[in-house]
Amino acid sequence: MNFQSSISVAEPSVAPSLETRVIETRRRSLALADPLTAEDQCVQAMDDASPTKWHLAHTTWFFETFVLKPHLAGYRLFDERFPFCFNSYYEAEGDRHPRAHRGLLTRPTHAEVVAYRAHIDESLDKLFATGMAHETEIARLLEIGLNHEEQHQELLLTDILALFALSPLLPAYREQPSKPQSKQKGETGWMSFDSGIVEIGHTGSAFCFDNEQPRHRALVHPFRMADRLVTNGEWQEFMRAGGYTKPEFWLADGWALAKREGWEAPLYYRRRDNQWHEIGLGGLQPVDPDAPVAHVSYYEADAYARFAGKRLPTEFEWEVAAQRAAPDRNDLGSGLLRPMPAKNEHGVRQMFGDCWEWTQSAYLPFPGYKAPEGAIGEYNGKFMVSQMVLKGASCVTPAGHTRPTYRNFFYPWQRWQFMGLRLAEDAA
Amino acid sequence: MNFQSSISVAEPSVAPSLETRVIETRRRSLALADPLTAEDQCVQAMDDASPTKWHLAHTTWFFETFVLKPHLAGYRLFDERFPFCFNSYYEAEGDRHPRAHRGLLTRPTHAEVVAYRAHIDESLDKLFATGMAHETEIARLLEIGLNHEEQHQELLLTDILALFALSPLLPAYREQPSKPQSKQKGETGWMSFDSGIVEIGHTGSAFCFDNEQPRHRALVHPFRMADRLVTNGEWQEFMRAGGYTKPEFWLADGWALAKREGWEAPLYYRRRDNQWHEIGLGGLQPVDPDAPVAHVSYYEADAYARFAGKRLPTEFEWEVAAQRAAPDRNDLGSGLLRPMPAKNEHGVRQMFGDCWEWTQSAYLPFPGYKAPEGAIGEYNGKFMVSQMVLKGASCVTPAGHTRPTYRNFFYPWQRWQFMGLRLAEDAA
Amino acid sequence: MNFQSSISVAEPSVAPSLETRVIETRRRSLALADPLTAEDQCVQAMDDASPTKWHLAHTTWFFETFVLKPHLAGYRLFDERFPFCFNSYYEAEGDRHPRAHRGLLTRPTHAEVVAYRAHIDESLDKLFATGMAHETEIARLLEIGLNHEEQHQELLLTDILALFALSPLLPAYREQPSKPQSKQKGETGWMSFDSGIVEIGHTGSAFCFDNEQPRHRALVHPFRMADRLVTNGEWQEFMRAGGYTKPEFWLADGWALAKREGWEAPLYYRRRDNQWHEIGLGGLQPVDPDAPVAHVSYYEADAYARFAGKRLPTEFEWEVAAQRAAPDRNDLGSGLLRPMPAKNEHGVRQMFGDCWEWTQSAYLPFPGYKAPEGAIGEYNGKFMVSQMVLKGASCVTPAGHTRPTYRNFFYPWQRWQFMGLRLAEDAA
Amino acid sequence: MNFQSSISVAEPSVAPSLETRVIETRRRSLALADPLTAEDQCVQAMDDASPTKWHLAHTTWFFETFVLKPHLAGYRLFDERFPFCFNSYYEAEGDRHPRAHRGLLTRPTHAEVVAYRAHIDESLDKLFATGMAHETEIARLLEIGLNHEEQHQELLLTDILALFALSPLLPAYREQPSKPQSKQKGETGWMSFDSGIVEIGHTGSAFCFDNEQPRHRALVHPFRMADRLVTNGEWQEFMRAGGYTKPEFWLADGWALAKREGWEAPLYYRRRDNQWHEIGLGGLQPVDPDAPVAHVSYYEADAYARFAGKRLPTEFEWEVAAQRAAPDRNDLGSGLLRPMPAKNEHGVRQMFGDCWEWTQSAYLPFPGYKAPEGAIGEYNGKFMVSQMVLKGASCVTPAGHTRPTYRNFFYPWQRWQFMGLRLAEDAA
Repeated sequence: MNFQSSISVAEPSVAPSLETRVIETRRRSLALADPLTAEDQCVQAMDDASPTKWHLAHTTWFFETFVLKPHLAGYRLFDERFPFCFNSYYEAEGDRHPRAHRGLLTRPTHAEVVAYRAHIDESLDKLFATGMAHETEIARLLEIGLNHEEQHQELLLTDILALFALSPLLPAYREQPSKPQSKQKGETGWMSFDSGIVEIGHTGSAFCFDNEQPRHRALVHPFRMADRLVTNGEWQEFMRAGGYTKPEFWLADGWALAKREGWEAPLYYRRRDNQWHEIGLGGLQPVDPDAPVAHVSYYEADAYARFAGKRLPTEFEWEVAAQRAAPDRNDLGSGLLRPMPAKNEHGVRQMFGDCWEWTQSAYLPFPGYKAPEGAIGEYNGKFMVSQMVLKGASCVTPAGHTRPTYRNFFYPWQRWQFMGLRLAEDAA
Repeated sequence: MNFQSSISVAEPSVAPSLETRVIETRRRSLALADPLTAEDQCVQAMDDASPTKWHLAHTTWFFETFVLKPHLAGYRLFDERFPFCFNSYYEAEGDRHPRAHRGLLTRPTHAEVVAYRAHIDESLDKLFATGMAHETEIARLLEIGLNHEEQHQELLLTDILALFALSPLLPAYREQPSKPQSKQKGETGWMSFDSGIVEIGHTGSAFCFDNEQPRHRALVHPFRMADRLVTNGEWQEFMRAGGYTKPEFWLADGWALAKREGWEAPLYYRRRDNQWHEIGLGGLQPVDPDAPVAHVSYYEADAYARFAGKRLPTEFEWEVAAQRAAPDRNDLGSGLLRPMPAKNEHGVRQMFGDCWEWTQSAYLPFPGYKAPEGAIGEYNGKFMVSQMVLKGASCVTPAGHTRPTYRNFFYPWQRWQFMGLRLAEDAA
Repeated sequence: MNFQSSISVAEPSVAPSLETRVIETRRRSLALADPLTAEDQCVQAMDDASPTKWHLAHTTWFFETFVLKPHLAGYRLFDERFPFCFNSYYEAEGDRHPRAHRGLLTRPTHAEVVAYRAHIDESLDKLFATGMAHETEIARLLEIGLNHEEQHQELLLTDILALFALSPLLPAYREQPSKPQSKQKGETGWMSFDSGIVEIGHTGSAFCFDNEQPRHRALVHPFRMADRLVTNGEWQEFMRAGGYTKPEFWLADGWALAKREGWEAPLYYRRRDNQWHEIGLGGLQPVDPDAPVAHVSYYEADAYARFAGKRLPTEFEWEVAAQRAAPDRNDLGSGLLRPMPAKNEHGVRQMFGDCWEWTQSAYLPFPGYKAPEGAIGEYNGKFMVSQMVLKGASCVTPAGHTRPTYRNFFYPWQRWQFMGLRLAEDAA
Repeated sequence: MNFQSSISVAEPSVAPSLETRVIETRRRSLALADPLTAEDQCVQAMDDASPTKWHLAHTTWFFETFVLKPHLAGYRLFDERFPFCFNSYYEAEGDRHPRAHRGLLTRPTHAEVVAYRAHIDESLDKLFATGMAHETEIARLLEIGLNHEEQHQELLLTDILALFALSPLLPAYREQPSKPQSKQKGETGWMSFDSGIVEIGHTGSAFCFDNEQPRHRALVHPFRMADRLVTNGEWQEFMRAGGYTKPEFWLADGWALAKREGWEAPLYYRRRDNQWHEIGLGGLQPVDPDAPVAHVSYYEADAYARFAGKRLPTEFEWEVAAQRAAPDRNDLGSGLLRPMPAKNEHGVRQMFGDCWEWTQSAYLPFPGYKAPEGAIGEYNGKFMVSQMVLKGASCVTPAGHTRPTYRNFFYPWQRWQFMGLRLAEDAA
């Protein structure tokens, strides 16, 4: 099997149908799990991370629960016990297996979950055959299911990385070619943006999540934004300058956590033979100083920005700057599975790939936001507290999944995603 | 002793001098401690709360460290060991006693802390006598010290309430007259506000904290705001409607906490003889249905708003609405020490008293915010993550301490302050 | 495959050689794992329990480390990284993977661990071929390795039960025939024993663990001992009499734990359709009132004894009473995998099978005990505090593994082994 | 006030009456609290330790509950709310304030507790006046109350030491004269004891606790016992030899705890100016190498014994050896409040003073033990699991409180009592 082609979505000349996209997306999930043993797929590294098998089953449950059960006549549950096992957090859908115990689900077996997927895929085929999939409500739910599964594809990869990083054997998810020597370093340029009232949030008929709406006006003050991400080389300067030992750079919560947990580098940095290495999906490799730093928390990103005399951008500034984004896109479609040095291109580079970018915006509802009715309304709205917005995409975000208005969100202490940062500053 | 007069600041005909205000403020702290035994003053109810004695000493250390040591020639520390004991969180000022152990400081004794206060007060007198107190930098530090002490006066009262609420004897801080039957109920009115660009943040020469600046433009969308706080009576409707048992009202973090901790009412509600009572500074009393609900977390406030089909205001909306604030001010100056029913007045009532009001704004830096240099810069900036802004004042906020631009902040799970809520909604 | 025959050790007419026994034992471990998927074998239910795969690898590491490495000329480690993964607690053997993370070891894979086992088995064959295996020191180590692996066979089964008990699907390790209706109930008889000085501890040339020695004299007071174990039926009387709600039956530590954890029945009891069921290796089954109660902690066993007006026996009394043991042996050799009602036999029944029996003896060194030199000395001695002695055997103890002097030990709160109790009382 | 005379019980020529002893004991509790402020008396250092005020009130509640309420006609509770506050653990006496919150009881005030004590003392006087105090049952309860209060006197001192040890000011409970240079070092001698059946446990009409009975026969093997305690000097050899860094000396539980908590010396050792000091009731003082080591856990004591090639004695051996005890008694009666070097005397020295001595005996019931009926039966029996027996007395044990059969007990990890060790070994 050609691995890369199976996880990439080839750029089509004509936009593929919803049906095609659902089928392709479903297929890609299995392809992503392919390099993993049944054991690898069963275990969870920590409460925040889920097993691969659980991702495969949960995304399937999502289609079963929200599409097939209500909309495919005569549909019967594949297994009455699975909703309890594979509901993530939808209170309106009933009780469920505790999140921290997902890794204990050796049953259903991997084979049974694959059969579950096949059953649902066949049932989706039946639904497509009815022609009903074009009805607005069903199409909307299918789109959500598809985008939901794409999100879990990213989590599948970051969660397996979290697991492998705890292994004494430090296995690779996939062997990687030794990194090409990046000759053309990306120098940081600063793009200036004027003050003004801008339109923020999604518009048009294409799919978006509820949290990207309603589109509304926002006031942005003049700012400058770096045209590339902060690199490992720059981060190591921060480390050498006492970044992890001087409280003056840090938010109080971050400093307390960093001391308690003994942080002294990004999550997956490891010192070997007196040199910094990094655990990635290709195993343990020497850190590439020109590649963007990844796996840093908001606390660390904010501390770095203070050290550098800059700040993180707001989500609104980022959305404005996205209009000048370069065309580079190192996402899952590139098949590289790691953040790469910025290319020599014009425009704001690395905006939709490499690393999700911490902003200094708290994850809050847009003015006028209303969560949808019913269980599907629990998708985004109920997490709108204590988390920070991240923008862009990462090297493991499915191609086509994200857009300028996309709002990702994590707690300020979380680090296991491919999270990095881009600096901003006030303009006069 | 006339208790009320000693804790109130009489409204003066002429603005009192800084010197007078410092002296009055320092005196008031001791007056607030007066109803308490040395034992009461020594203990802390929980990690978040500090002992009265510690508040008395810490505020004193603040003047010693930031005013006297650098600016009074020849000043020598009262006791070389006290900075370790009474530094709260200023990393730049060195190591300190752990916060959770403040209640173990039986030494220095209460009498020694009173002597410490007297010594610093005398040294401040010496500083005043030099005339130097009018120099800008020193005056600014004195103002900060004064405002800092006012903040701790409020904490002193909320922290002692937290302690007494854990006592099997449920003692009163001060006996209260039985509540007057509030005949004139405050009906909720809704004030409308237009969209527009508004100026937010402090301006002028009067004192403010760094986090209220810089003044900047913000865009506010049309909204309506309730002209009084949500009452206990309304809150009990929420409780009867399953407010604490239905996850659909709640943010996910809030729901998880509420279940884990078994929340079923505001923090100090207690059921006695099948009727809700509330622990306050006057001991256990039947709940007054017309008084504002207090001691609810952000999670609860947000859940209530969702239940009511409304939302919490943003801090900017609140600041705009403050221009129409009624003149009522049930703060520490009233001497009532408890939230009171809204008066029959025009305008937005209960804005600067009764309860701090949760907003849906995360506590983040204003555009262009810079923390001051040095240890004093740790005052506000390093807390700008994961907390929510509260506006207004409470029944135990010293008179004159607050203003429309004032930004209070707490974590969304905290409840021990006098925290309540006011509803808002989008206008067409 | 005939499952039962593969996990049983047939009673031989002639004592099998050490070589044969090692080979048989090693083979049985794999047979026990046979009904489990690779996923089942990878996961751990809790910190106390280990994954099947880990048991398979750890017992293999034991032979590699203590037998092959020092005694087979030219032996090279199968994999340099495995000792870190599969050392359990031998400090003298170096650092090791944390116990609580054993379930994260998806790598090495199940297949690699099977290969590891094969490699060590072949190397043991080479050792046998040298004839050296008869040398005293090596034979002793082989015996320890064999007995060590037998212990892990029991743990393998109790640990997989712990895992399956947490599964929403409650899978069976092996389908069981519906229990035969036990017509002949075992009535409890009381056997009397006189006072006297007795010899306690192992003697003779057969294998024993270090903690069973030295044989020494002990004074036993006159006592009576029940001739069978406490049954589920009797335990349910205790439950109906408020056994889990009345503190007067309980040790203080036990009561505190039972309240904190909400205990109201033995570990694997579950109420279904208003009737008590129990999770066993055959899945969820109605409780058999005549079978011995299992999966109770020392705290519960002691509370039951107090409720019954009796007490638990000491380990010395038990060892004395073992001289009158009936020949019944429901251990792993019976292949039933569950505790069974007492048979109608003479003598003290159920002594070497069904359930390990809590005694009221703390697990302490015998007078004159010395731990062996070196890492192997860490086997037993370093656990001699805070645990209680259990005697006998359980329904999952390999046949031939145990004997009257055998000392099993667990903490008083642990319940996941097949642990039950037998009553005793003072005689006049 | 002459402090020493008030805390000592002068050796009387004639045995004092029960009445006199009760009065003297009650008086001594107040005398012990005398050097402490109300604040000192209110706070608890940790969950295991109680505030002085609580000790004063709890011992008073004990007399009220078990003596006055049932036996003084017409007695009415001093305050209906106090039983909830001051019941320690007697389940049969109803609900109670959580142990970990004892330090939050600023109310009742110190003055109120003193009044409570006076009220109970007066009521006891009335009881004495009735002559009923001589009735067997009442006399027995008074004896228990008296001995109970003596136990709390010791705890009062060890608990205040625990509190002061956490203070940045390291206050002294009482200023101590600089230690006299101990010229005559105590050399360790080894006393030999034969094997035999001995009588263990209390006999005669004098008071003892239930756990010292019934007297019964026990078999003791030949042993040798050190005639003095292990000293600080010897302990520091252990430290220098890697005692806290080499797992081979340690029980597994102890090693895990020592690593987790970072133990590197006895609890109150502090390094100052590159020299070991120790916090005691006289504040921080240089360690006296000839004085017994104190404040070590069972884990440490056991590790030391293994290091020294010896072992700890059993409680039975200790009780046998007590027959050859030297007459030295550095208990609370000496007024020194710290362990002292062994005197040049014949016999087994330091047996009833200086430090409680860890034995290798688990705290279990004696053969034939029955807890008394009713709440008083909760005194000892319900703690008979997971703790180890300590014998002797410490420098803060009230004179006359202890005897050879006395069984003290603590968990193997506890260190805040004056706990030390004496070595033993097997004899041929």
